[in-house]
Amino acid sequence: MQDIISIAKSAKDASISALSLSEELKNNALIKIAEEIENNKELIFNSNNMDLQSASILLNEGKISNSMFNRLKLDENKLTDMIQGIKDVAKLPEPVNKILFEKNIAVGITLKKVSCPIGVIAVIFEARPDVISQIVSLCLKTSNAVILKGGSEAVNTNKAIFDIIKNSLKNFPQIPEGLINLVFSREDINEILSLDRYIDLIIPRGSNSLVKYIKENTKIPVLGHSDGVCHIYIDEYADLEKAINVCIDAKCQYPSACNSVETVLVHKSLLNLFVPRLIFKLIENNVEILADENIKNIFPSVTVACEADWSTEYSDKKVSLKIVDNINEAVNHINKYGSGHTDCIITENNDNAEYFMQMVDSAGVYQNISTRFADGYRYGFGAEVGISTNKTHARGPVGLDGLTIYKYKLYGNGDIVDDFVKGKRKFFK
Amino acid sequence: MQDIISIAKSAKDASISALSLSEELKNNALIKIAEEIENNKELIFNSNNMDLQSASILLNEGKISNSMFNRLKLDENKLTDMIQGIKDVAKLPEPVNKILFEKNIAVGITLKKVSCPIGVIAVIFEARPDVISQIVSLCLKTSNAVILKGGSEAVNTNKAIFDIIKNSLKNFPQIPEGLINLVFSREDINEILSLDRYIDLIIPRGSNSLVKYIKENTKIPVLGHSDGVCHIYIDEYADLEKAINVCIDAKCQYPSACNSVETVLVHKSLLNLFVPRLIFKLIENNVEILADENIKNIFPSVTVACEADWSTEYSDKKVSLKIVDNINEAVNHINKYGSGHTDCIITENNDNAEYFMQMVDSAGVYQNISTRFADGYRYGFGAEVGISTNKTHARGPVGLDGLTIYKYKLYGNGDIVDDFVKGKRKFFK
Repeated sequence: MQDIISIAKSAKDASISALSLSEELKNNALIKIAEEIENNKELIFNSNNMDLQSASILLNEGKISNSMFNRLKLDENKLTDMIQGIKDVAKLPEPVNKILFEKNIAVGITLKKVSCPIGVIAVIFEARPDVISQIVSLCLKTSNAVILKGGSEAVNTNKAIFDIIKNSLKNFPQIPEGLINLVFSREDINEILSLDRYIDLIIPRGSNSLVKYIKENTKIPVLGHSDGVCHIYIDEYADLEKAINVCIDAKCQYPSACNSVETVLVHKSLLNLFVPRLIFKLIENNVEILADENIKNIFPSVTVACEADWSTEYSDKKVSLKIVDNINEAVNHINKYGSGHTDCIITENNDNAEYFMQMVDSAGVYQNISTRFADGYRYGFGAEVGISTNKTHARGPVGLDGLTIYKYKLYGNGDIVDDFVKGKRKFFK
Repeated sequence: MQDIISIAKSAKDASISALSLSEELKNNALIKIAEEIENNKELIFNSNNMDLQSASILLNEGKISNSMFNRLKLDENKLTDMIQGIKDVAKLPEPVNKILFEKNIAVGITLKKVSCPIGVIAVIFEARPDVISQIVSLCLKTSNAVILKGGSEAVNTNKAIFDIIKNSLKNFPQIPEGLINLVFSREDINEILSLDRYIDLIIPRGSNSLVKYIKENTKIPVLGHSDGVCHIYIDEYADLEKAINVCIDAKCQYPSACNSVETVLVHKSLLNLFVPRLIFKLIENNVEILADENIKNIFPSVTVACEADWSTEYSDKKVSLKIVDNINEAVNHINKYGSGHTDCIITENNDNAEYFMQMVDSAGVYQNISTRFADGYRYGFGAEVGISTNKTHARGPVGLDGLTIYKYKLYGNGDIVDDFVKGKRKFFK
């Protein structure tokens, strides 16, 4: 039996030892992991087949969804992506020991703000076994210790990938044994959530309900988002061609993505001119429409949205439509029903755009561009830890710097505060 | 009776309206508050006298400490500092709507990372009524809403200062009514701690036990530190003159400060050469000494430190002394018993200093300088929100940027992800 407290303690110790890991060593270890995953592909596929066999029984019994089954399945493409992902992280600039600023605060006293790892990260994930290699590479790159908790449905695949990683790291004795850990049993989640003494940050990767459960049951900071209720507001000054294109992309390009649109708000002046075109295009793309009474009046065939619809993430080809009187009603609707993820205004009026982007309290505020762009890779971060709707630490798509914090280094020459208090010395302004 | 949930809801609404406040308006409001506090000094002193009368009874009964009584007392100097503090905040650069970076991620698509307020801040404080004006000015400057919860011992002073602030703000109708709130009753603390739906950040300002209680009883992020167990390690390559000066300053300049030193670790090679000098100087400064067996053997008069002493913040003229075999034992001791606040090495060997500063997992790591320098004003931040030992969001002395987060603004021209997925367009590398 695994003892989570011992694992967490050893991860904490390892996180301290890891403070001395060099950039070169970490990158060599990442390359080695990528190579060993490549060399042991068959072993991973065999383990994955065992998980898929058990899962197909659950699938037939209706106990898991098709999409969960698909996420569980590792094929040649996913494995190639996994391997490339690790190599890509190795190529990123060193995220820790970076001098964020440096200044003299008084004669002979230098202050440096330096990036450093957070400590121990716990990652709780479901189904997707490709998460392991991704998270291990991000944590190793940032010199953080990690405790991985995978779902029982992927236990064989997770174990196979984890063992390959652990074996690869045996070539690097400077990397502490306790740096990377995998735990299995279902009860472990609640134990992990209670270990705020050892764990500094939790990253959930899974269903909205998993994320919600974790956020509601721990005092440890959680980096992530539960809902992605994204909006597009079609302003009275919208270019209607752009409006149509962006709405269709944001809804149809990948409907189950967290950054796909759930509600389109339309300025009342566009009710007759634009709404019919939009509805036509949505229907053409097999999107189910839920609309407010104003729209129902001119399109009797649409379903009327209920109050709960405005705050629902459909994760499907389904969208809510609503007419608003003005930009303020749009802003208020988004701040009330949205999830603070990503919201867009379609307008050629830049004043309206700036007002919308200032007043909507979301991680991403967009003008004339699909909400689907909310993504760490698309933002050019090189890696994505996740998308956060938090109001502290990290917000929006999070790159490697979401796994770092900083310390202050202060260099003196025997300096004492008493000299400054007594006015013998002065700080620079 | 005050209804905390309604207050929190209205603070949340106010935090949205406040997103549109201009720099000029906020600074004018701060100046007005400073002026009105100046104009109403007598009223504040009268209210403070009422609190001091009640407190003196508690003091005589031994129910509150002398230092608490002193913190409660507002005199002309403290009030002048309060007023100057508000004016200083008005002069600081605007902390929100700052472009943190800007880049093109593809042809015609611009990404901006822009600083913005966090939302609703709750500040729970004890005794010190000067906290109100300080926190209100920091929150107004950063366009955050604030819920202040003061201790019952300062209820009259708090109420007087709060009313003056509220009256001053009546001259600025753009500042939403719900932006600044004061609540009183003791039961309110637990209600505040449960309102993670409305409150984004809690800042405790008070005793270690208050901070500890808050950290252990809320899911809302808490910015602060409970203990300040700071260390100085005297390396074998130390300049002994600097070592003595820094130790005495760090212990005696203000013993109850969180950044004063609690434990001095000394390299074994200095047992005979340095320890007697240090002990002599400490005794000369009326510092009580608790020491390990090595030191007790040569100074039979000192008390032996028990295990609990190594993790105790004395907040008094009292220090623990310990001999260590090498720098690693010092680092391990600090990471085990310290509070991650501020720790210093005294050495002329820069390699040892860098090793110590990398391996000690604390917010501040110092070479040859008193731990008492850990302070936002001394670091040149212009204002201090508090000192944080957190591993996420903000660490060490926190300036105005600890009260801000950021959003991403993305500007396009009708761009859709589908074009990039299909290879028709490419992101910049």
